[in-house]
Amino acid sequence: MFPKYDVIVVGAGHAGCEAAAAAANMGSKVLLVTMNMHTIAQMSCNPAMGGVAKGQIVREIDALGGQSGIISDKTMIQFRMLNRSKGPAMWSPRCQSDRMRFAEEWRLTLEQTPNVDFWQDTVRELIVKNGAVAGIKTSLGIEIQSKSVVLTNGTFLNGLIHIGEKNFGGGRVGEKSATGITEQLIELGFESGRMKTGTPPRIDGRSLDYTRMEEQPGDENPAKFSYTSTPKLEHQRSCWITYTNEEVHAALRTGFDKSPMFSGRIKGLGPRYCPSVEDKINRFADKDRHQIFVEPEGWNTVEIYVNGFSTSLPEDVQYKALRLIPGFENAKMFRPGYAIEYDYFPPTQLKLTLETHLIKNLFFAGQINGTTGYEEAACQGLIAGINAHQNTHELEPFVLKRSEAYIGVLVDDLVNKGTDEPYRMFTSRAEYRTLLRQDNADIRLTEKGYKLGLAAESRLQRVREKVANTELILKELKTIKAQPEEINEQLVQLGTATIREKQPLYQLLKRPDIEIDDIKNLKGSFAGFLNQFDEEALEQAMITVKYESYIEKEYLMVEKMNRLEDLEIIPNFDYDRVSALSFEGRQKLKSLRPGTLGQASRISGVSPSDVSVLMIYLGR
Amino acid sequence: MFPKYDVIVVGAGHAGCEAAAAAANMGSKVLLVTMNMHTIAQMSCNPAMGGVAKGQIVREIDALGGQSGIISDKTMIQFRMLNRSKGPAMWSPRCQSDRMRFAEEWRLTLEQTPNVDFWQDTVRELIVKNGAVAGIKTSLGIEIQSKSVVLTNGTFLNGLIHIGEKNFGGGRVGEKSATGITEQLIELGFESGRMKTGTPPRIDGRSLDYTRMEEQPGDENPAKFSYTSTPKLEHQRSCWITYTNEEVHAALRTGFDKSPMFSGRIKGLGPRYCPSVEDKINRFADKDRHQIFVEPEGWNTVEIYVNGFSTSLPEDVQYKALRLIPGFENAKMFRPGYAIEYDYFPPTQLKLTLETHLIKNLFFAGQINGTTGYEEAACQGLIAGINAHQNTHELEPFVLKRSEAYIGVLVDDLVNKGTDEPYRMFTSRAEYRTLLRQDNADIRLTEKGYKLGLAAESRLQRVREKVANTELILKELKTIKAQPEEINEQLVQLGTATIREKQPLYQLLKRPDIEIDDIKNLKGSFAGFLNQFDEEALEQAMITVKYESYIEKEYLMVEKMNRLEDLEIIPNFDYDRVSALSFEGRQKLKSLRPGTLGQASRISGVSPSDVSVLMIYLGR
Repeated sequence: MFPKYDVIVVGAGHAGCEAAAAAANMGSKVLLVTMNMHTIAQMSCNPAMGGVAKGQIVREIDALGGQSGIISDKTMIQFRMLNRSKGPAMWSPRCQSDRMRFAEEWRLTLEQTPNVDFWQDTVRELIVKNGAVAGIKTSLGIEIQSKSVVLTNGTFLNGLIHIGEKNFGGGRVGEKSATGITEQLIELGFESGRMKTGTPPRIDGRSLDYTRMEEQPGDENPAKFSYTSTPKLEHQRSCWITYTNEEVHAALRTGFDKSPMFSGRIKGLGPRYCPSVEDKINRFADKDRHQIFVEPEGWNTVEIYVNGFSTSLPEDVQYKALRLIPGFENAKMFRPGYAIEYDYFPPTQLKLTLETHLIKNLFFAGQINGTTGYEEAACQGLIAGINAHQNTHELEPFVLKRSEAYIGVLVDDLVNKGTDEPYRMFTSRAEYRTLLRQDNADIRLTEKGYKLGLAAESRLQRVREKVANTELILKELKTIKAQPEEINEQLVQLGTATIREKQPLYQLLKRPDIEIDDIKNLKGSFAGFLNQFDEEALEQAMITVKYESYIEKEYLMVEKMNRLEDLEIIPNFDYDRVSALSFEGRQKLKSLRPGTLGQASRISGVSPSDVSVLMIYLGR
Repeated sequence: MFPKYDVIVVGAGHAGCEAAAAAANMGSKVLLVTMNMHTIAQMSCNPAMGGVAKGQIVREIDALGGQSGIISDKTMIQFRMLNRSKGPAMWSPRCQSDRMRFAEEWRLTLEQTPNVDFWQDTVRELIVKNGAVAGIKTSLGIEIQSKSVVLTNGTFLNGLIHIGEKNFGGGRVGEKSATGITEQLIELGFESGRMKTGTPPRIDGRSLDYTRMEEQPGDENPAKFSYTSTPKLEHQRSCWITYTNEEVHAALRTGFDKSPMFSGRIKGLGPRYCPSVEDKINRFADKDRHQIFVEPEGWNTVEIYVNGFSTSLPEDVQYKALRLIPGFENAKMFRPGYAIEYDYFPPTQLKLTLETHLIKNLFFAGQINGTTGYEEAACQGLIAGINAHQNTHELEPFVLKRSEAYIGVLVDDLVNKGTDEPYRMFTSRAEYRTLLRQDNADIRLTEKGYKLGLAAESRLQRVREKVANTELILKELKTIKAQPEEINEQLVQLGTATIREKQPLYQLLKRPDIEIDDIKNLKGSFAGFLNQFDEEALEQAMITVKYESYIEKEYLMVEKMNRLEDLEIIPNFDYDRVSALSFEGRQKLKSLRPGTLGQASRISGVSPSDVSVLMIYLGR
């Protein structure tokens, strides 16, 4: 009934969709198996993509030839570049999405991907022969063969939903859970664990009083995620900000005795940086308010997502507390918030390709690896999809280094350090974050995507143009020298210091109070020389000029690291001699005794600064 | 946590959505409870609305102020007026819908209905006090109070899905079933039964060869369902027609030993006029082919609905047989067809308001009453919603007569005749089908809808204008007399007989070969007198002229029937004396001994002709 596929992807969330699209676009015959064709690419939690570090990941996915950026652009209702006031390493694109449009766009995209077939069914078992996966068995009893299998089960494996003292099976509320796979994997020798995540109540936007909240509109000139020619937003919908207060907290506390979190009924660990509201008021008892971010669910729907109010307290407690929030006095709920526990497999059981060590041809991506977040899931799907294709066709594994991409940091963290709580990306996880910017993901990655056969040639040409233009701009900025008499008056107008002798424009741009647009607008003999360049190249040039020294420093660091990566550490190395090591780092190093500095750096508990200390020590 | 509602509607399919919208628009505070906010108004079966007799129902719903017509218009991808070549009683509007758009539009419509609140949960139990329902209990353990409750559970009550020898619980494939309500209702004294319905496999349209099928485009000038100003279609998508053959049948027969239909595993009766393909080839063994109607699922999706191939044979048998259909040689399935069994409650337990006899304030609508079809469900939802509102506010019950609407026929059939197989509407079920036309549903019903407070005043004005214009046209047609010398040449051109002396245009229009447009285009002294009237009034006038005698006859019949409706039949009436009675009719009459001819007419087995015979007999 089915041909033998190159790649079967199990699950059609962010990870599964990217995996299927990637493998198919590279030429693999792909089967995407989903429990319900109507719930492909659901945003199970908040209706947004991107954010700090996460937005960078979306741009990286896009640069490699993935789809999340394009789909986000097509379905966004608001865009903001977060952290614009900070350095460019912190600039982070984030959008609000139309939840229904997002899911639909993914489905249509996959439908238009020639190599993707679909099958609606639940996978109960893997076909495993001689230590290698060879296909799947479904709840209909169907066996489907494939050379590689990517599991992206999200929260569905033995999913258990908690609301107050009640709990029931489900992969999302209103949907079934999936059983069988965990049990089989454990039998095959995998270690598994439980994690927990949660989601807030959904609210009827008609019942809110927005006059009591602060409006948060989108950017005036909204950017976008994809480097391709997706259209920019013309209209946007605003979000709204309000705050909890002591009354809200008191109301929530009345439900603590029934909380599945506090009673110990929930065994799995939840995402530390996306805690439930009860967790927040419990852990930060001195904080008298917490921010609530009121997000519309789409262009037309009245449904509202109450970001910051994730909870698994009894629904009547949720309701009572909600109504004490300014603007929520008459709030009506569509459904309560809930917590969900699910199985994950500690990702130290994976190779850097996301293939499992134990079972050949079997790849894991997304929450099954202990991560949280759409973007984290999507990029793992992309890497697993790429490597499933490479594996199927006996091609080189595809691995990104920590210095090349947040995706590289994420996979390396997972595989080498593991995680016992839902792993979320932060800029602080990256040693080289000045290099891993949202503006240069294409420069960093598109050539790799192209070589894989994933990113189209037109993308590569676009990047090459951008690089060439940037270099041209830099050259011009260094060549063109402004004369004091020509520009001093203009500099005064710009509120910056005058010059005494002629100076290259490059030098002027280094000033913190001068932007590339100021240079572009300068009058004089050289006026207009930047008119031929587009915004993107101009921005790229400006960042290069302004952050030159940081960037150079990090490049040196990367080079050094690359050189020292394979530096051997003698088996009986005396870590006690290195006094600058952290206590935890020394303990781990002494017990695990890594063979190289590279290995040492990937041990959980060995901090980047421990590595630097060792590097200096060993480098001598 | 919840206020006391006027009306709670359980289930958000076609019936539930209409019920919620109707009660809310009439002023009731309504809570719509659905298992999943993402699956509101799913078209569980084919992506189409209307059809023979069903299209008339949609227009009736619209005329009363319901939403199905408007939503169908907004989301259709193709429109056809079926039976255009037959008399206007048979004209039946039908559209292909974009499945996703249809569901979304319903949700957005309900969201924009101020009196509708939403709650995502599963109802497990009704709160019943002193023989009256007073609210619901949900799977979250929440009690919500209301004055009336409308149950529209569709196929979800103890839903059991069959594919070959496998079966599993579910309300639709990939969705959970609902338990508890049936058990409670039985305990309360209700009689329940099992029914069955089925759906075909869904196909990847990319895998079909359309060159091997016949194209079926939409109408050249597509009409629409709603009498309101919904826009007309500008583009359409075609359907395609192909046929099974002996090879397909042979392939299907290889699975008969595993068929849940033939093995007796399925206990419930299925829809007689929408049988599974295995049922068709089994019952009509001499037919060497059956038509397959290939319907696109929307504007953009590649998913295809294979109308005519509903099946619960094992999925590999479905697949093998499908691929033998011309155009399906390389067909890929998204999911197999399946049968589903579910609980229903024989509708003889209902009043004509759709309130149950046993439990006050409790209404049933849709498949729970043993019907099949979106339109049948929607109109019951409308009637139940209206009456739940009326009941809650102690207003008059709203009942449509058989002579007023197909909806009246449907409800009367259900309540008085009951059904033991899924009930579907046909024009043949209506005694007065010449009166119950799709073109005059507004004239028949909008005033009723307006008096209920459901149809807006603007609708009533529109109808009054249409009626006034129609009368004006008729008057003009009777007044204006054409002279032979003025029009004979034109009549020859039209291919119809010439006239010898002056004749009213009315008379000319009676000719089968003359349309109202021909009259409109006639040149002469009266030319242009129809230019001021719109298409609708012109069509109405034409139908009145052409079918005058039939219409009058049926009106007389209705009047007679109304007069005789209450005609008493003496308790010991000797039915054997009336030799023209059917055998079954006489048996039933002798055993049930109805008190009036009206009652007699509603006995299952007493045919319309039996009633006519009795009417003549008693009328003397």
